[in-house]
Amino acid sequence: MCQACDSFLDRLFAKGVLHETGVDGLYGRGQAFEAVIEGMDRLITRTAANDHAEVIRFPPGMNRALFEKSGYMKNFPQLAGTVHSFAGSERDHLALLDNIHNGGDWTGGQGATDIVLTPAACYPLYPIVARRGPLAPEGGLFDIQSYCFRHEPSKDPARMQMFRMREFVRIGLPEQAASFRESWLERARDFAETLQLPHHIDVANDPFFGRAGRMMASSQREQALKFELLVPIESTENPTACQSFNYHQDHFGELWGITTASGETAHTACVGFGMERLALALFKHHGIDTNGWPNSVRAALSL
Amino acid sequence: MCQACDSFLDRLFAKGVLHETGVDGLYGRGQAFEAVIEGMDRLITRTAANDHAEVIRFPPGMNRALFEKSGYMKNFPQLAGTVHSFAGSERDHLALLDNIHNGGDWTGGQGATDIVLTPAACYPLYPIVARRGPLAPEGGLFDIQSYCFRHEPSKDPARMQMFRMREFVRIGLPEQAASFRESWLERARDFAETLQLPHHIDVANDPFFGRAGRMMASSQREQALKFELLVPIESTENPTACQSFNYHQDHFGELWGITTASGETAHTACVGFGMERLALALFKHHGIDTNGWPNSVRAALSL
Repeated sequence: MCQACDSFLDRLFAKGVLHETGVDGLYGRGQAFEAVIEGMDRLITRTAANDHAEVIRFPPGMNRALFEKSGYMKNFPQLAGTVHSFAGSERDHLALLDNIHNGGDWTGGQGATDIVLTPAACYPLYPIVARRGPLAPEGGLFDIQSYCFRHEPSKDPARMQMFRMREFVRIGLPEQAASFRESWLERARDFAETLQLPHHIDVANDPFFGRAGRMMASSQREQALKFELLVPIESTENPTACQSFNYHQDHFGELWGITTASGETAHTACVGFGMERLALALFKHHGIDTNGWPNSVRAALSL
Repeated sequence: MCQACDSFLDRLFAKGVLHETGVDGLYGRGQAFEAVIEGMDRLITRTAANDHAEVIRFPPGMNRALFEKSGYMKNFPQLAGTVHSFAGSERDHLALLDNIHNGGDWTGGQGATDIVLTPAACYPLYPIVARRGPLAPEGGLFDIQSYCFRHEPSKDPARMQMFRMREFVRIGLPEQAASFRESWLERARDFAETLQLPHHIDVANDPFFGRAGRMMASSQREQALKFELLVPIESTENPTACQSFNYHQDHFGELWGITTASGETAHTACVGFGMERLALALFKHHGIDTNGWPNSVRAALSL
């Protein structure tokens, strides 16, 4: 039997749940897929309704200068995407077209713009919060969303290069950040049970780059700064992180100069929902046709 | 009086309708702004409900090889955005970090990926339709959406670098494409009246690059291939195109090899909604606070 001909991704293509573009990790989304994403968005909003978070939605790119300051290129240079553009003359343009026509590399003449693709939904948030001045005593709570980019082409449908991340971000005292993360770890179990997804929660680390990165990853695990909700999608042995729960201590507070009401450096924590991964987990475990999904799951997603 | 201190964009920032990022044309969206976008999305869906278009949603990037073939770099090189990434060694990485640290240009070492930012929502659609083979006799009708990128930094809030475009695309016989465009020109008037926006519809041209481009623009106008729904936002003399209605003749059908049921080259037409521009038009004409908008407009948008 031809495994490759019958992969989960191929079945998603065959049924129009996703649409092939010729680039691994870059797909069009069909009606059923989007209905699931929208249903989950509503379910997450209902879960957090009484928290009264401030809603901000970001475009898929952010300010390059702020991105540089964020330290992302130190930790994850291999995943970042910078946006480049043509700023030449008509003569340069003719040379560019010749290059394209001859199948040559025409991209060398592109110059970096002020924009990079957003790597995680919360990166553009911190400078906005910092600009507002010291936090109120109750701290800050934000409900954010962005299309994110990570340059890691893969045939695993759960490892997309462009995907949506919904996040809640808590900014305030250490105990406010800690209790926020605890409450979302509890909600995550309810969420996965409502959606009838097999799951477990485990300590995790980010994919830091290089040798120095391996030490950072190990320190992150030791301090239990990152947890993930894992659901088997492409593989049972290596389940996919569909939500993450991160405590940044005072890293972003220090970096951006965010202070509490009493003038101390703010601590931050976030919970991120990988919307495409969660949708794929549902298609994997309940079937390619959403009409056949368990009634309670359909009801939770208003399908 | 200081005009600049009191611009429409500044008022949008002051009320948290949009959030500044430090890059012109790149903004976070507040809760009220997103509620208007969502309301318009639902209104457009209701308007087209009986058309039974196939729904596809695209990520903000597309396949670079297909983009090259599309001819976009011939016509609008100045607007395109290519996505570049780091693929170097640990040593290259250290040099890159030194560059960032010293405020040097670190982006020269970034190499082009297989992805470019999507310039208009319909660009990724045509290759997908072509791959399916000849059209059915009734042709094709698609309801698509994408975040789009155009590199034109501006303080005019209606000229964003990253914005959402909702589109309907008709693919079939010349008369199918023509009658599709006619019907949307009629619907556009109803749409603008429902939203109580001052408007007119006029023939238009795309911003083709360079001297050769001026001839293409003039030919496009002469043949009346493009119309726009114009609403004053930043200026009464130069109203903003909030919707466009395009007849591509057999351009995309020929380019991608899309054929009708009887084997002829398909004609295509599209109507595009600039979602951010329409939202801004509403904030401009009805006020910064959506609570004060006319009841019938609020009802149409389910605010």
